[in-house]
Amino acid sequence: MKLKDLGEFNFINRISKAIKLSSQVVKGIGDDAAVLKYTKDKYLLFTTDMLLEGKHFYKGSSAGLVGGKALSSNISDIAAMGGIPKFAVISIGFTGSMNFKYADELYKGIRKVADKFSVDLVGGDTVGSNKIIINIALIGEVEIKNLALRSKAKEKDAIFVTGNIGGSIKLKHLNFTPRLKEARFLVKNFKINSMIDISDALLADLGHILEESNKGAMIYEKMIPVSKDAIDFDSAIRDGEDFELIFTLSEKQADRLENIWPFKTKLSRIGKICNAHKGFSLIRKSGKSKKIKPTGFTHF
Amino acid sequence: MKLKDLGEFNFINRISKAIKLSSQVVKGIGDDAAVLKYTKDKYLLFTTDMLLEGKHFYKGSSAGLVGGKALSSNISDIAAMGGIPKFAVISIGFTGSMNFKYADELYKGIRKVADKFSVDLVGGDTVGSNKIIINIALIGEVEIKNLALRSKAKEKDAIFVTGNIGGSIKLKHLNFTPRLKEARFLVKNFKINSMIDISDALLADLGHILEESNKGAMIYEKMIPVSKDAIDFDSAIRDGEDFELIFTLSEKQADRLENIWPFKTKLSRIGKICNAHKGFSLIRKSGKSKKIKPTGFTHF
Repeated sequence: MKLKDLGEFNFINRISKAIKLSSQVVKGIGDDAAVLKYTKDKYLLFTTDMLLEGKHFYKGSSAGLVGGKALSSNISDIAAMGGIPKFAVISIGFTGSMNFKYADELYKGIRKVADKFSVDLVGGDTVGSNKIIINIALIGEVEIKNLALRSKAKEKDAIFVTGNIGGSIKLKHLNFTPRLKEARFLVKNFKINSMIDISDALLADLGHILEESNKGAMIYEKMIPVSKDAIDFDSAIRDGEDFELIFTLSEKQADRLENIWPFKTKLSRIGKICNAHKGFSLIRKSGKSKKIKPTGFTHF
Repeated sequence: MKLKDLGEFNFINRISKAIKLSSQVVKGIGDDAAVLKYTKDKYLLFTTDMLLEGKHFYKGSSAGLVGGKALSSNISDIAAMGGIPKFAVISIGFTGSMNFKYADELYKGIRKVADKFSVDLVGGDTVGSNKIIINIALIGEVEIKNLALRSKAKEKDAIFVTGNIGGSIKLKHLNFTPRLKEARFLVKNFKINSMIDISDALLADLGHILEESNKGAMIYEKMIPVSKDAIDFDSAIRDGEDFELIFTLSEKQADRLENIWPFKTKLSRIGKICNAHKGFSLIRKSGKSKKIKPTGFTHF
């Protein structure tokens, strides 16, 4: 059997099931970042992301944006746990015949994001490679009381999404601001029951929350904010790399949140969590309800 | 100017100089692992390594050994700091047409090493790629008093190396045991002034110690243990990926060490540290002294 027949998520599940973890691991594979015991009141967070030329970016992509994306996508994962990014190590595959200005620009892009979010770039690895490869691993930390997992969504929770959805392929997937300040505001001022960042797609990533929390959901087409860059609504909710946050909290908390949200970043209440046996449905503008399959981008 | 004209180490120096670090970083780029403030009596260690098909291994290489190497090379870095490996995240690039048994074997190889050295595999990333890529990032910890850097070699220190040198390309580069128990014995029982693992080559890595410590050294051909797999002495000292330890400590401590070394792993006293202006020399079996350039493998 080939990997693509097994499918990416089935493969990850296979791997994950075979791994035994020590009691120092609060959460291993299966959230935006791993959660590790640290101090009396804090956890360590640990995540990694790999970007490949020809897959996540192209020869013609701005080197600075590519570098920035490599770090920003990791910061987005730490944000989705409610945490703060701290230390990064960077592995880069370069061809020796590359103009070193491209390499310089790429590192400048990483440094710019690192400076903005106070991340220390503390090490890495460089290897010779015909295609450009960037892998960043990022350590973060989060107060134990502020940790936000995918797995704690509760029935009747309101579902929110930040920003606009879809069409990120036009530019946003390379040029986005991870929602760190928004996430920190949320976890410090509200009881956030579940949170995830959109890397696979709105449907797929909300689907991850539902699966991990063993819940269903109803979401409303008319409430979902679609980017002007998206082809249409149906593709927008299936497109990856929006790097927006999806989160859920109680209705009462949700009402308060809508009153005090202090950011320019758009905030949209798109639906609610329900019992698992009700499944996952989309209410069309027409009022018709449609059962949906939480699909998004998979690598194989 | 192309990257290969600049050279790998010059490029890394450029990057490193441009990076500003916070006070939470004890040591950034330029040792086997980054050293980060953690608790009252411990530091965190953080390292990463990328392996590429066609570069570090080939289509025909045993998947289990490739996976094992990816984690072992990181453990070797943590060992060279005097620390203990704790948590790893794994990024893998696979082609979807790959037989999933190969992928399974690769993860089994990683798990086998993780189990042996009590490392928790806590997360990762999978991406579609025509060539296999494995990047592992590893968090470790070390008691502050046991930290071993490259930069603290002292004049008159004895220089030691573990195991045999050279010819690792035949098999050892894919099938080695990181010298973790040896390194822990050393830092717990002796004042280790400097330590590094051999990834570039004996000459190159001892050269890193000399450069970072601003010292010179004399090493003796007759004392350097050459593997039966090496072509000859001169290639052995320039071959990479031995994954043995080079370390230095005072002569007095060295005498005691030679008396109580409890392991089967060979231990060889190969020379001594001297003042920087004396340079780096190799004393041939004939007794002739030769100034040497600390060369080894570079990626571009």
